[in-house]
Amino acid sequence: MTPQAPTPAYRRLSVEERRVQLLDAALVLFAHRPPQEVSLDDVAEQAGVSRPLVYRYFPGGKQQLYEAALRSAADELTLCFDEPHEGPLLARLSRALDRYLTFVEEHDTGFSALLRGGSVAETSRTSSIVDGVRRAAAEHVLSHLGVAGPGPRLRMTVRMWITAVEAGSLIWLDEDKQPPLDELRDWLVEQFLAALTVTARRDPQTEALVAALAAEV
Amino acid sequence: MTPQAPTPAYRRLSVEERRVQLLDAALVLFAHRPPQEVSLDDVAEQAGVSRPLVYRYFPGGKQQLYEAALRSAADELTLCFDEPHEGPLLARLSRALDRYLTFVEEHDTGFSALLRGGSVAETSRTSSIVDGVRRAAAEHVLSHLGVAGPGPRLRMTVRMWITAVEAGSLIWLDEDKQPPLDELRDWLVEQFLAALTVTARRDPQTEALVAALAAEV
Repeated sequence: MTPQAPTPAYRRLSVEERRVQLLDAALVLFAHRPPQEVSLDDVAEQAGVSRPLVYRYFPGGKQQLYEAALRSAADELTLCFDEPHEGPLLARLSRALDRYLTFVEEHDTGFSALLRGGSVAETSRTSSIVDGVRRAAAEHVLSHLGVAGPGPRLRMTVRMWITAVEAGSLIWLDEDKQPPLDELRDWLVEQFLAALTVTARRDPQTEALVAALAAEV
Repeated sequence: MTPQAPTPAYRRLSVEERRVQLLDAALVLFAHRPPQEVSLDDVAEQAGVSRPLVYRYFPGGKQQLYEAALRSAADELTLCFDEPHEGPLLARLSRALDRYLTFVEEHDTGFSALLRGGSVAETSRTSSIVDGVRRAAAEHVLSHLGVAGPGPRLRMTVRMWITAVEAGSLIWLDEDKQPPLDELRDWLVEQFLAALTVTARRDPQTEALVAALAAEV
């Protein structure tokens, strides 16, 4: 192994593997620092590769890397919502929330920076990636509720709860992850049920859903 | 009145009055179109003044005008939260929400564009203006609750509800302002009480607050 030649491991990765390696390195850095403080040099150092290599994969520089990392995080986040359509509904929601909060916990600063916006790297494209995650979350929850053609009141309740969960996660990170993850998760599930119960007073569809949830327990 | 000379009304306005006139014109335009589709020409036409005059007041061009309009809207929005510290708590909340939703209703597209972000004109500065409104809303609500030193659970509940209200307002505009404003307002107040009630199960401070609210009715 000479200083001039890349290490054998350096050669062995395929284009896709290399890309994933660089994005992982970027996500680790974003987990501890806001995007504007992460340079391509840092990513090269974190991944143990040369700066030109990082530029070859992300010729658009920092902005392209940031967007790719955001998309990769969004994909990972969306995977958290995958849950088999079986068993009690609130237990499914609880499992999905558990995976989501674990993701938030692991990515920490990166998660805040990515979702909070207001970073120098934010563009209309990054907002639409984040909006895509929110939409996916709402669709997942609605699909699990098993309601045919959810009406506007039920949809609004679900979407508002999802926004509240997102805000809650950011506040949780600010509060040094207090209360503990499992308490936060249970509390969020209870908040969901309480929100549905309020909507049920004005919406027969939600009323039937709440009755079905009560029968499950 | 000749074409060369400004009209007498044109002369009479002070610098501050002129500025307010231009911002009002901009807000009217933002109420119907996303910021990126509003030009300084449009603002000049809406206000009935010349384009150079608009540039004199906003030499930074569109971006400066957008930020000034956002700040003006934020100030107006923050005023909605002003409510005397007397009478039943939920009635105060209901009145503040009524003013807030009326603002949302009147500003419509402008409100969405301003708060939704993702517009071409968004910067870290515009996000911090919007965050300032959110913080002000949380502080107002907490001050009305009359709790000395609100703990993390109560603060989290209030901040999550405020985010949910903001999301709900945007969805409401998307849904052609259905349900009617007063129904949405009452539903949001009930959501607030339900969220507090869930938190009360784990937090003695919130439990005492919920008991006090129940005694008010």
